[in-house]
Amino acid sequence: MGANRRQRVVIVGAGFAGLFAARGLRRVDVEVTLIDRHNYHLFQPLLYQVATAGLAPSDIAWPIRGILSKQKNVTVLLDQVTGVDKTTGEALIGDSKIRYDYLVLATGARHAYFGHEDWEPYAPGLKSIDDATEIRRRILVAFERAEMTTDVDERTRLLNFVIVGAGPTGVELAGTVAELARRTLAADFRRIDSRSARVILVEAGPRVLPAFSEKMSSYAQKALTRLGVEVLLENAVTQCGVDGVVVDGQDIPSATVLWAAGVAASPAGDWVGATVDRAGRVFVEADLSVSNHPNIFVAGDTAVVYDSKGQVVPGIAPAAKQQGRYIAKVIQSRVDGTAPPRAFQYRHTGNLATIGRKSAVMELPFMRMTGLVAWWGWGIAHIYFLIGVRSPLTVAINWLWQYVTYSRGARLITGGRPGGADSE
Amino acid sequence: MGANRRQRVVIVGAGFAGLFAARGLRRVDVEVTLIDRHNYHLFQPLLYQVATAGLAPSDIAWPIRGILSKQKNVTVLLDQVTGVDKTTGEALIGDSKIRYDYLVLATGARHAYFGHEDWEPYAPGLKSIDDATEIRRRILVAFERAEMTTDVDERTRLLNFVIVGAGPTGVELAGTVAELARRTLAADFRRIDSRSARVILVEAGPRVLPAFSEKMSSYAQKALTRLGVEVLLENAVTQCGVDGVVVDGQDIPSATVLWAAGVAASPAGDWVGATVDRAGRVFVEADLSVSNHPNIFVAGDTAVVYDSKGQVVPGIAPAAKQQGRYIAKVIQSRVDGTAPPRAFQYRHTGNLATIGRKSAVMELPFMRMTGLVAWWGWGIAHIYFLIGVRSPLTVAINWLWQYVTYSRGARLITGGRPGGADSE
Repeated sequence: MGANRRQRVVIVGAGFAGLFAARGLRRVDVEVTLIDRHNYHLFQPLLYQVATAGLAPSDIAWPIRGILSKQKNVTVLLDQVTGVDKTTGEALIGDSKIRYDYLVLATGARHAYFGHEDWEPYAPGLKSIDDATEIRRRILVAFERAEMTTDVDERTRLLNFVIVGAGPTGVELAGTVAELARRTLAADFRRIDSRSARVILVEAGPRVLPAFSEKMSSYAQKALTRLGVEVLLENAVTQCGVDGVVVDGQDIPSATVLWAAGVAASPAGDWVGATVDRAGRVFVEADLSVSNHPNIFVAGDTAVVYDSKGQVVPGIAPAAKQQGRYIAKVIQSRVDGTAPPRAFQYRHTGNLATIGRKSAVMELPFMRMTGLVAWWGWGIAHIYFLIGVRSPLTVAINWLWQYVTYSRGARLITGGRPGGADSE
Repeated sequence: MGANRRQRVVIVGAGFAGLFAARGLRRVDVEVTLIDRHNYHLFQPLLYQVATAGLAPSDIAWPIRGILSKQKNVTVLLDQVTGVDKTTGEALIGDSKIRYDYLVLATGARHAYFGHEDWEPYAPGLKSIDDATEIRRRILVAFERAEMTTDVDERTRLLNFVIVGAGPTGVELAGTVAELARRTLAADFRRIDSRSARVILVEAGPRVLPAFSEKMSSYAQKALTRLGVEVLLENAVTQCGVDGVVVDGQDIPSATVLWAAGVAASPAGDWVGATVDRAGRVFVEADLSVSNHPNIFVAGDTAVVYDSKGQVVPGIAPAAKQQGRYIAKVIQSRVDGTAPPRAFQYRHTGNLATIGRKSAVMELPFMRMTGLVAWWGWGIAHIYFLIGVRSPLTVAINWLWQYVTYSRGARLITGGRPGGADSE
């Protein structure tokens, strides 16, 4: 190992944190290996649109190789990391190992069911493209089966849609499912009236969008109600099974229950034996490294980061992006032998959530907006956010196009069980 | 059953034949039920583009309900017909039955392996969206695994792609896989050179595109060779398994073998006990009805139709469309009590096949074209062909857009086995 060997940075995860860490190293004299178990970078804020048949997967996910093809110091590998050997400095991939000088763990989050993991098959969450297309399948097939059945109770059950958790994901899902039922599909059926579907949003806490201000919360709740969503606050799901849910003692028969009620970190914290919080997120130092392991960094939803005011940095995309870039700067300073950057400081860019196609709440540091102008502001913010991933103009034109044409192509039912009517 | 009861037309299959039969009945006083086991109408001519990651499924498939939502006399059902009871006049759907006065069977084709059905898992065919995304997955994962492996023989095997059958589908697949390897993916990998991939097109007969003229055949073969496709003519596959194929005694190790060598009809002929040919296609009368069953019609790839010159009508999309429309006219004449139309006469609109992104062969009744102008002519012909399915302008803009941007989003690897690196 001569002094002139280029140092190796291994980044696990090609979400916002991992991708922008890789891009941040494009002018640094290191060999970067970026490993992800998917071949695409996923724009998670719009995953709910794929789940509700408003966008296609290819509208919100792009091959990592395509994004990084011009960056010659990056090698992309499609694989799954299963552990880390800190003593030898290697990441474990099945039977193989990859040596690192610097390791960045940016493996994101998964769903948390608060001890009720057995609910997962009946109440899928939304973290990946395959989650989204499965949810889309369930929603669309529910309407199809309702059209075919002659059993009145079964039809009612099929036309009840339950969303658990009223954070941004739950609110966005509820709003778009309601619109799907009330508008998009309204002319498509002859035996059922899709507009009679019930969309029920269940939240254990006292308000929707608990991370937003009360005023924005209240606006969002009214907008949801106008769309016909039934908002049940301070109600918790106590049972969940193939027939539906039980919410505070009340039976709600349903064929489509969607889980947006909690996330936990990926198991990366276990790989390095770091201290984690209750959700499995790794406590990191001021420079986002793991205690006593200055060459191992954790970023994004897998980390718990405190800002200078002592507040936890939210698990949202802009935070992950900033952390990824910051880590690249730290590594750069070490490779170049220059002074390290100051402690990581999160710059809050705001809270955004849409309600249907025409409304949104947008809480920026100095401004709040609601309604249609917030919806367009939300769109522009997200497109701007993609700079460095994909040409914003390309994305803007594509999304605008889908919006204007109601993206009928996104309403495909694919996959499913062999031999069933909804499969090949 | 009073004289004033509206008659019922049951159409099985929402491909070109079934869809245009349904649309042809929009001004006829009948109740139409259109049944398909998918919720979308699929534009099959472009399926090879989805299989080679050039287009997304939503670019070539549209929900049937969306297409027919304005046609009030049509009910669309997502289900699978399993048989027909001719004595009671009912189509069987699992445990249910649907009564018909007129029945149209337009259930298309499936792959034929000429007695080697055990080859199917190793050499998938291309008839549906799920086929296409599975083939796409195999192609892209082959490159990914080649990037990761250190075994030279394995890398060679992974970078061999074999297409069996040189009809239009095989030619189109071979051309686009070659372009994928030589151009689209060329900058994406660091350890392999994707351009070194071998693309081998195997054909048992003496020329590619056997249904075309010899001159077009010869042009296509040269164009394929220029793209780096190895064309093996008068060579038959004698073995096929997980390691590759054996072609006339020669071993070709491969991880990706695609079957484009034969089709057979769907089993609809068995449902009605009709006379069928070797490929299972139903012999029909001059008005496309089944012998001795004037109210049961068969159209599209499930039928074998002779034109007035005694030649078999080819199993291509324009033929299916014409047959569907014709059947609607026959049914209309019976319902209205007017004179029936003359015997079905197929109007040949031409043979088209693309080779890569810049070349095509186009054989029209009065003209032949090759090269780039044929490619654009092909595009225009297909867009025009979609009138009645989707706004041609919408489709034109969408496809043009994908072409210009190289449709990166279509290169997603989705689905796959749970627990593997290429799955969720």
